[in-house]
Amino acid sequence: MSPAANIDGQRGQRVRIVGTGLIGTSLGMALSRAGFPVSLDDPSPTAAALARDLGAGALAVTVATAPDVVVVAAPPDVVAAVAAAELARWPDAVVTDVASVKGAVLATLREAGADLSRYVGSHPMAGRERSGAMAAQGDLFEGRSWVVAPGPEASAGAVDLVRQIAEAVGPVVLVMTPGEHDAAVAAVSHVPQIAASLVASRLRDLPSSAVALSGQGIRDVTRIAASDPGMWTQILAGNAPAVRAVLESLAAELAAVLDALRHLETDPGEGSVGARAALARAVADGNAGHALIPGKHGAAPTTYATVVVLVPDEPGALGRLLQDVGEAGVNMEDLRLEHGIGQPFGLAELSVLPAAAQPLTTALRSLGWPVHE
Amino acid sequence: MSPAANIDGQRGQRVRIVGTGLIGTSLGMALSRAGFPVSLDDPSPTAAALARDLGAGALAVTVATAPDVVVVAAPPDVVAAVAAAELARWPDAVVTDVASVKGAVLATLREAGADLSRYVGSHPMAGRERSGAMAAQGDLFEGRSWVVAPGPEASAGAVDLVRQIAEAVGPVVLVMTPGEHDAAVAAVSHVPQIAASLVASRLRDLPSSAVALSGQGIRDVTRIAASDPGMWTQILAGNAPAVRAVLESLAAELAAVLDALRHLETDPGEGSVGARAALARAVADGNAGHALIPGKHGAAPTTYATVVVLVPDEPGALGRLLQDVGEAGVNMEDLRLEHGIGQPFGLAELSVLPAAAQPLTTALRSLGWPVHE
Repeated sequence: MSPAANIDGQRGQRVRIVGTGLIGTSLGMALSRAGFPVSLDDPSPTAAALARDLGAGALAVTVATAPDVVVVAAPPDVVAAVAAAELARWPDAVVTDVASVKGAVLATLREAGADLSRYVGSHPMAGRERSGAMAAQGDLFEGRSWVVAPGPEASAGAVDLVRQIAEAVGPVVLVMTPGEHDAAVAAVSHVPQIAASLVASRLRDLPSSAVALSGQGIRDVTRIAASDPGMWTQILAGNAPAVRAVLESLAAELAAVLDALRHLETDPGEGSVGARAALARAVADGNAGHALIPGKHGAAPTTYATVVVLVPDEPGALGRLLQDVGEAGVNMEDLRLEHGIGQPFGLAELSVLPAAAQPLTTALRSLGWPVHE
Repeated sequence: MSPAANIDGQRGQRVRIVGTGLIGTSLGMALSRAGFPVSLDDPSPTAAALARDLGAGALAVTVATAPDVVVVAAPPDVVAAVAAAELARWPDAVVTDVASVKGAVLATLREAGADLSRYVGSHPMAGRERSGAMAAQGDLFEGRSWVVAPGPEASAGAVDLVRQIAEAVGPVVLVMTPGEHDAAVAAVSHVPQIAASLVASRLRDLPSSAVALSGQGIRDVTRIAASDPGMWTQILAGNAPAVRAVLESLAAELAAVLDALRHLETDPGEGSVGARAALARAVADGNAGHALIPGKHGAAPTTYATVVVLVPDEPGALGRLLQDVGEAGVNMEDLRLEHGIGQPFGLAELSVLPAAAQPLTTALRSLGWPVHE
């Protein structure tokens, strides 16, 4: 049976999932719900049995038929070896994987002489701060992006099959080459992670009275600095060329900023006009890059108006506020909470469409909320 | 009259505010409400009149008596010159300023031969994304930090007076030296701003299909990259030595990360064990720094449990959810919203004390909310 014969337009493809951690188990739950027959395998029989008990599918050892598609959901550093073994074991199946770096897996498979016409890498961009089957969710992929990244050797039928599996569980599917994918995640995920870690790392040199001045800005910049070093070492090592390219461009601009600061330090007067221009350019270039990030729901970036409300820190207070916002007929586009230091309240920043800001302010004030447009 | 004679423990000190932008006008509103007689001056008579109309105080031209304390709320690049002029003009007054960098102002005043016993720099850490008197709020300082940063020449009476003015408007007052202050804001504010700008700047090199992969991580890291280049050039130039020191430490660690990535690129096998360790160390050091940031309300950092709920994107839905959270008797410690791409709903991540996670999950599920611990 050729891969193309698997594409029957129905949800009857037999899916084999190898690796029943967070992603594998969540995918099994979602595909089972969608009517796909799913079989589960894992080096740990206990892990596979747990995924089965959570409704992710049947144990592979109990399934007699060969799979039509294999999803390798193993840890990043073993994905290529497992994918090669699956391609060899199931000569009629399409094999995909869910690793967050795509070029290295393809290169390893090519070196190993695997049948690349049946391999299509993919990357569901859905993680959680927790891992393992117990954190799995059948709706983990809804509303997320899922990149399908075929190599040049992949057959059209294999690409269609992987896309069909992905689309069955709710995400927005994007097709790009492995190289395009790796360059993209280097810039939008891997380099931001490194930057957050390096900024957070600086706080280790400060007295605690100085760290106490931390405001919302550094909290946002460093939120992802709490990520797992082991996992990130695998990801960064797996995408070393693309991360290095973006990071070198960042380092060059950082060197220009440092050069400008040194000029200003030694000659704060007339001689440093160019230095100020260099600093302004760095911030302005950041403005331009930031403006490219899509707005809510993948729509074009929009500028929202902000309505700031003082909210007492007691159970239900924020709920009452948002209830009142809803009753005013206004849809919040975003919500940010800023906590006062040593004070029993927080500031809620409600982002709304510009036309809604004034009516909302009036409505909330009439209900007694201390509000600032 | 000596400065010490001004400290009468009552709220009778006559305050003169020079510069009626966001901070000056907000401070005038707050001090006027607190019973201080406030006079307002600005190079623009229109700006001063607007601040008066907003309730920030009386126009200085109508006030016959000399001030006890002068607050210079001028733009950063003219603060030192204005403070010097005010010290000379009012020989009995204590002068403070609200610039976000403190060492440079003090150094300039010292060079100018000003009476430094009467000068005490300060820094209310309260900004908004908008500027100008129209954005002013009488409660702008409530719950924020306000650093009082006296130089070695400042008299104890002058320090007490500035602290008293600050405490009258609601913030948490922290006293540190100008050098300690500048090193602190370099690390917790200025370097994060540069890092956010440099990360966002990289997006300019990507095709829009790649930028579409942006998730919550890069959105958080780059949120402050939307800041005003003109204002930030003044701030960074004013704190050049302290920012350079922190940034050089960051650049050295970045160079080590780049070196590790190059090793992994040329020799991904056994030869790069040290390279993986270098990457893991960078992320682990970031973990350690991140853990130092104080939690909500300045309390010690706490690990909260997260309850994730799928919320439909319609007016009032989030409000109903939080109302239900409140009725379950649970106090939310933090709330984050993550928006699905191309999907009409969002994920709400509620942070609660670990002991509250299970009861909250049960309560919300019984009300029909799709919830994941």
